[in-house]
Amino acid sequence: MASDADTVFDLVVLGGGSGGYAAALRAAQLGMNVALIEKDKLGGTCLHRGCIPTKALLHAGEVADQARESASFGIKATFEGIDMPAVHAYKDGVVSRLYKGLQGLVASRKITQIEGEGRLVSPTAVQVNGQRVEGRHVLLATGSVPKSLPGLRIDGDRVICSDQALQLDYVPRSVVILGGGVIGVEFASIWRSFGAEVTIIEALPRLVPAEDENSSKLLERAFRRRGVKFEVGARFSGVEYTENGVRVSLENGKQFEADLLLVAVGRAPVSEGLGYEEVGVAMDRGYVKVDGYCQTNVPTISAVGDLIPTPQLAHVGFGEGILVAERLAGLKVTPIDYDGVPRVTYSDPEVASVGLTEAAAKEKYGAENITSFRYNLGGNGKSQILKTAGEVKVIQLKDGPVVGVHMVGARMGELTAEAQLIYNWEALPSEVAQLIHPHPTQSEALGEAHLALAGKPLHVHD
Amino acid sequence: MASDADTVFDLVVLGGGSGGYAAALRAAQLGMNVALIEKDKLGGTCLHRGCIPTKALLHAGEVADQARESASFGIKATFEGIDMPAVHAYKDGVVSRLYKGLQGLVASRKITQIEGEGRLVSPTAVQVNGQRVEGRHVLLATGSVPKSLPGLRIDGDRVICSDQALQLDYVPRSVVILGGGVIGVEFASIWRSFGAEVTIIEALPRLVPAEDENSSKLLERAFRRRGVKFEVGARFSGVEYTENGVRVSLENGKQFEADLLLVAVGRAPVSEGLGYEEVGVAMDRGYVKVDGYCQTNVPTISAVGDLIPTPQLAHVGFGEGILVAERLAGLKVTPIDYDGVPRVTYSDPEVASVGLTEAAAKEKYGAENITSFRYNLGGNGKSQILKTAGEVKVIQLKDGPVVGVHMVGARMGELTAEAQLIYNWEALPSEVAQLIHPHPTQSEALGEAHLALAGKPLHVHD
Repeated sequence: MASDADTVFDLVVLGGGSGGYAAALRAAQLGMNVALIEKDKLGGTCLHRGCIPTKALLHAGEVADQARESASFGIKATFEGIDMPAVHAYKDGVVSRLYKGLQGLVASRKITQIEGEGRLVSPTAVQVNGQRVEGRHVLLATGSVPKSLPGLRIDGDRVICSDQALQLDYVPRSVVILGGGVIGVEFASIWRSFGAEVTIIEALPRLVPAEDENSSKLLERAFRRRGVKFEVGARFSGVEYTENGVRVSLENGKQFEADLLLVAVGRAPVSEGLGYEEVGVAMDRGYVKVDGYCQTNVPTISAVGDLIPTPQLAHVGFGEGILVAERLAGLKVTPIDYDGVPRVTYSDPEVASVGLTEAAAKEKYGAENITSFRYNLGGNGKSQILKTAGEVKVIQLKDGPVVGVHMVGARMGELTAEAQLIYNWEALPSEVAQLIHPHPTQSEALGEAHLALAGKPLHVHD
Repeated sequence: MASDADTVFDLVVLGGGSGGYAAALRAAQLGMNVALIEKDKLGGTCLHRGCIPTKALLHAGEVADQARESASFGIKATFEGIDMPAVHAYKDGVVSRLYKGLQGLVASRKITQIEGEGRLVSPTAVQVNGQRVEGRHVLLATGSVPKSLPGLRIDGDRVICSDQALQLDYVPRSVVILGGGVIGVEFASIWRSFGAEVTIIEALPRLVPAEDENSSKLLERAFRRRGVKFEVGARFSGVEYTENGVRVSLENGKQFEADLLLVAVGRAPVSEGLGYEEVGVAMDRGYVKVDGYCQTNVPTISAVGDLIPTPQLAHVGFGEGILVAERLAGLKVTPIDYDGVPRVTYSDPEVASVGLTEAAAKEKYGAENITSFRYNLGGNGKSQILKTAGEVKVIQLKDGPVVGVHMVGARMGELTAEAQLIYNWEALPSEVAQLIHPHPTQSEALGEAHLALAGKPLHVHD
């Protein structure tokens, strides 16, 4: 849809991913006249190349593992293999249903959608398809792309990034994954469930190094049991092609051969060549700098999502987009407490957290003021039924509120919803302990940890 | 373990189920000298004949359904059948691990355990194994058993109750289930997943009649899709034996033939012949009457769990047991708000709720003061990935707090943990809406409903 050349929009949004479309939806709802510019598909990375397709693959992996292990539940079933075209049909079906819903939603809010590659040309204008789109305010939301290491070329065939991994039309026999963060660990889980030999290389001393150390330990234990190999504290030195695959070398001298190398060393903001610096937007290593209100140094320009140096999560983008729309509409807004945003790695087992790690809490408040409790899922009936191992760890400011929740185990991601309220509402363990959780659910593990911290452990040895 | 004949315990607990053992554990922890009398196994109905074994069977059913439907996720697997001995081995393994843990826990708290059938013989004494066990206080926690209808005899073979259903060593071809409440619906789900033809008979006009009407509608829709048959608003009139099974007749003239009839019309308190009335404990239709502190009319006697007319849920028993122990120890206690206790029916799909139904809320506050919002799981990414249908419905006091949450869909039970905090902490939708839920989780559906009620719908058409 083209906009009238004389129109000055209230808000021009550059980028239709999670942060951009959330801002556009909320701004339109608040009565603003909004233009939304997207070069590819509405929904961006999250919907098309990130959260949704990866979680569909992870669930297909869960179905495969469940079929393999069905006898241990008394169910006679034979696992025969992975039908990759059918897996893709399933994944793409989920994506396209959600995409259709999103398109309908944006259309219903009377947002002017412009398909094309936009470029910031002034503090109040974006150039797209040779046309100048003017706005009283501009929101930059151009997202991120997978990055690589210096000298490491993604060829899209044997050396791939997550975009290509999502499209792979076969199950590799073996994969080396460079990077043990969320993305690397999720693909390791998927491919292992699909039957591949997987080795993760992580430069830092542990998998999911941003998480609490205990979570890393539990994930590593679970991955060892699943046969996922990993080398931590190991730096990549090079990759060479072999007859049918790749040979990956580490600085410690070790070498790993595999069909594929997945490069999962993080995502870089998309900000180059888009006119940001020319217009005077302050940047820092490719990220657009903002204050707690997602406001850049240029008064008419805001920025949200993976483009700014806040956690690269879709729900952070949603929150930031809503915040910007509400601020521009004159509503009272509160900066996001990023520590209070739930983080979930959807591998098997899941790693989920809200709030501070124990190390961060000790650093912030002093080690003597921090106490914590770990509840083992071995005592949780529903987790025993699911045959999942793990722990729920709750960190408390002594005699004060909960400042961190860290969980490892199947389906733990859903429990961050409760943990998010506990952390953000600064609940005392005794306040949570007052409410007995439903039996038998996995959420009882969270309840038991709070009961214990409140000095009244239930299903816990003193 | 026998107690010294001269010992006067601080607390004598009659019944070692959820309510009884929770009271014993907490009382012991608070320094009380406790005797715990149980005629069968520590853990009671919940652990041995209720919550835990049924949820294990439901999960085996989920594994079976997943194997049947694996192709729709791209996984090649062939479902071959149910191996009932292996199902029982799995179920019994879960139960025995938890049982062992519980035994260790009770032992570690130095509780005097007495195995035998106790009988109340005075306001401060229970007779067991010919011995008189004296206590400054007595807690009645004798639980409940499956009940039947007048004239309907449970023969344990073709006409069974849930105790026998849990032990059944084969999958019936067909079952009629009398009762469409939690227990009936869960067994319907299990047997349908195991391949049986199932028909539920419910006298009230809908399945799970204690739930919000919308939840019943959604469950009925899902059951229709699964091929679970049901007759609602239909009263049972009789059952006769056929050559290989039973013929069940309804007052409306309809008849259903099946291998088995499961009677699931509720659970009756176990209070007869235990001396309660003789000692002067006030009763009402078999239940022991208590005030909000689980105190009976006899000052030294308290009662908890299925024996009192509060919701028959294990976590209610836990809460009541803890409350009694703390009250007797002189701690400040608050009566339980039973509306704020999460309720979960663990069928496929799950039906989960906290707080008031819409009808109850309108009755309590006036219809004009109640507003509600239903979020369809069709818009929820994770639910699409799981291929589950359903809704999250949130009921709000106009411009006020959330007074009810009702959910139908796979895995919804876990979301009551968050809903429980929202209801009990009297949160406003705007307070929940401030916190963006993790993407992509099912908990986002709860987030979206609160965003909508707060006047700022995100992934929802206005």
